[in-house]
Amino acid sequence: MPLKPALLLAALALPLPAMAQMSPAQVAKLRDAALKDEIAWDITEGLTTEIGPRLAGTDDEARARTWAVAKLKALGFSNVRIEPYQMPVWVRGEEKASIVAPFPQQLHLAALGNSGATPADGVEGEVVYFPTLADLEAAPAASVTGKIVFVSHAMHAAQDGSSYGPFGQVRRAGPAIASRKGAAAILIRSIGTDYHRNPHTGVTNFPEGVAPIPAAALSLPDAEQLERVLERGKPVRVKLLLTPRQIGTRESGNVIAEVPGRDPKAGVVLIGGHLDSWDLGTGAIDDASGVAITAAAAKRIMAAGRPRRTIRVVWFGAEEVGGFGGIAYAKAHAGERHALAAESDFGADRVWKFDTALPASATAVADRLQTALAPLGITRGNAVAGDGTDIAPTLAQGVAAVDLSQDGTRYFDYHHTPDDTLDKIDRAQLQQNVAAWTAMLAVVADAPEEIGAVTRPAAGH
Amino acid sequence: MPLKPALLLAALALPLPAMAQMSPAQVAKLRDAALKDEIAWDITEGLTTEIGPRLAGTDDEARARTWAVAKLKALGFSNVRIEPYQMPVWVRGEEKASIVAPFPQQLHLAALGNSGATPADGVEGEVVYFPTLADLEAAPAASVTGKIVFVSHAMHAAQDGSSYGPFGQVRRAGPAIASRKGAAAILIRSIGTDYHRNPHTGVTNFPEGVAPIPAAALSLPDAEQLERVLERGKPVRVKLLLTPRQIGTRESGNVIAEVPGRDPKAGVVLIGGHLDSWDLGTGAIDDASGVAITAAAAKRIMAAGRPRRTIRVVWFGAEEVGGFGGIAYAKAHAGERHALAAESDFGADRVWKFDTALPASATAVADRLQTALAPLGITRGNAVAGDGTDIAPTLAQGVAAVDLSQDGTRYFDYHHTPDDTLDKIDRAQLQQNVAAWTAMLAVVADAPEEIGAVTRPAAGH
Repeated sequence: MPLKPALLLAALALPLPAMAQMSPAQVAKLRDAALKDEIAWDITEGLTTEIGPRLAGTDDEARARTWAVAKLKALGFSNVRIEPYQMPVWVRGEEKASIVAPFPQQLHLAALGNSGATPADGVEGEVVYFPTLADLEAAPAASVTGKIVFVSHAMHAAQDGSSYGPFGQVRRAGPAIASRKGAAAILIRSIGTDYHRNPHTGVTNFPEGVAPIPAAALSLPDAEQLERVLERGKPVRVKLLLTPRQIGTRESGNVIAEVPGRDPKAGVVLIGGHLDSWDLGTGAIDDASGVAITAAAAKRIMAAGRPRRTIRVVWFGAEEVGGFGGIAYAKAHAGERHALAAESDFGADRVWKFDTALPASATAVADRLQTALAPLGITRGNAVAGDGTDIAPTLAQGVAAVDLSQDGTRYFDYHHTPDDTLDKIDRAQLQQNVAAWTAMLAVVADAPEEIGAVTRPAAGH
Repeated sequence: MPLKPALLLAALALPLPAMAQMSPAQVAKLRDAALKDEIAWDITEGLTTEIGPRLAGTDDEARARTWAVAKLKALGFSNVRIEPYQMPVWVRGEEKASIVAPFPQQLHLAALGNSGATPADGVEGEVVYFPTLADLEAAPAASVTGKIVFVSHAMHAAQDGSSYGPFGQVRRAGPAIASRKGAAAILIRSIGTDYHRNPHTGVTNFPEGVAPIPAAALSLPDAEQLERVLERGKPVRVKLLLTPRQIGTRESGNVIAEVPGRDPKAGVVLIGGHLDSWDLGTGAIDDASGVAITAAAAKRIMAAGRPRRTIRVVWFGAEEVGGFGGIAYAKAHAGERHALAAESDFGADRVWKFDTALPASATAVADRLQTALAPLGITRGNAVAGDGTDIAPTLAQGVAAVDLSQDGTRYFDYHHTPDDTLDKIDRAQLQQNVAAWTAMLAVVADAPEEIGAVTRPAAGH
């Protein structure tokens, strides 16, 4: 039945909902409703099941972009699009390793991103062991040349994930150091905290002029096995076969979706995670959950009415292998005003802390965040916010930030391993994440304060 | 400095220690000293490190026997020897699988022991899904012929490991049922309780006249992924490559060591575990710890003096692939009097319960076991003892038994996977096991009661 003309006019005259700043009660209501969110689970389950692994620059990542566009359109977002860019692509090949002597047995490992390849029939050599990266750095080249370097470390789990920075250097820098000293190959103890035979891959880099040597991570049980074998004091020989390849320049892209704001001058709130994953797992915690949480929260704000600021959800491409998506985004959108940026790329366990980087004019925003987030068990930290590989190039332009810090105690049990699969997502904690992001967006996107540029301390984050 | 003749004579005249039954206080002292045992760790660490995987009938298992003989001799055991036998040997080949359509991605799996092979370029087929083994059994052959069968199940962890019996039938019987119905291959959800991408292998059997088809176990995350893909309702195609081989008859063997008793007529106390392991892990919980616990306990009794009964430690060969070692032992020693047998083949988490199968003349032995074991937190169960593939053929001759039941809550997280490695052994719990076995042996080997034949109920164990 069509509306009568009088009623129709009345309907048109109704104010659009939430045209003014949301009240604390409205924020609380949105937040608490998000504790029953199913959107984030649906995205996480769908992406990990229907696409699975999606290495940057591959057909798998391209399929993920197509999937993402369809999903974001179906959710009702505006301006859904792909912004493509070109990037160099490395792909995994065969990978096998074994101790040849004194105690023959297989080892489980995974090549690091950008690893060189062994000859087609492998490489065999004596293992030279360094308990830490500093030990490798201090070693004379003569003790390393022609040998297979093995570097261990003492990483342990930390709630804030802070152990990854320093211990991750073994992976990031170790291979180039070993190459410079003439090593035939390098094995590292996986940068991880679990005891399963699932090695942790991740990117390494060989600077211009440094030959890429075969570089791989042993699972923790294998690394400790090799340490025990070495402790026996006999020469240890390992045979290694790795056949990864650099396949040249390929297309990748960022998938972008928006909740248009009422006030184009107030600046964009940029949120997101990364769409690509490592090739070993299905990228559930890294980072299907991040794209899912941010999109689900944005969708909830959209459903509540038009916010003051445009919320732009970016599902970045090619984060894992060098942050190409984040760099491309910052370049393409350098001329736009960003009010604030926030990224979710640390799994989906509960948010326990938040930090901000806001101009003095907007400190009240942080106070309102504290009020809105406290009922979720989230405390206010004292760090300068700005976490995230993908938003870093945008933040470097002086953009304000909020960090919603997930509990990372078990994150490095699965990070970059075959074990990063859907079953690692705790649905209740995923919902708490969506609630935190919804509350954050409700406060930030509607804040009446101007959120201008931020100057970060040099040694900030 | 040589002893003076008078002192030498005095030394020779000293009575051998523990010529009579040990007192409860002596038992308790031995038990408590064993809580600081290092022998079992030393054996477990040594076998898993210096040999690693040791599949029955292979060179690896032969190296393990050599290692075992040296270790048992070094510990001071008597009559250390290998009793060889012949057995059919199956070896793993390549194994790869992927979903081809509708959502292409790799799957992690492991061939089951005795699996048939695919053609060299693999086999591709549509997946037909059965939630339970009963569903497969009920299916008309026409619905299965030429397809790749996938069977799931609902196994969950249980402290007493009792879920393995019924749910393990999916692995033991499923492949032959699928073969009879004309399936091209069968995939099962691993018989395990963890969520890591480490598939659980294990033996299956194709009876005479049933063609061995390719049969493999998916890791639990992969099995659930495949279930989710199937839930979408589109036809699902999987490509499978498995190249295991039956390599014919090879030599295996049991390694035997003894603590000679004072009274040859009192019968032998047979204890042990199995030396072989599956090929994927280093067999720490299955069953380096079992051979280690039993040998460490026997060594502690030996060090305390000569027990009434001979304790025979057997490190059985070829348990995993069909219990060939236990069968060979029972055949070779059928003429001997065994007073009692006990086996450790359920990891090294704490012993929480004991059961007995004793003749009426020896019920006091069970009471003394209760007293001796209670301080370790071990309660007396009401089952008829007789657990263990290796001692089963001996028990079938009417031999008494004691079961020391380990906590199996996490056992099927690692069982038959690449993850069965040394780091899964908890040293304190391993020591509690040695203490329990030491106390049990102190009571049983020295019991003045005759321990005669036992008649087990038909549906007993």
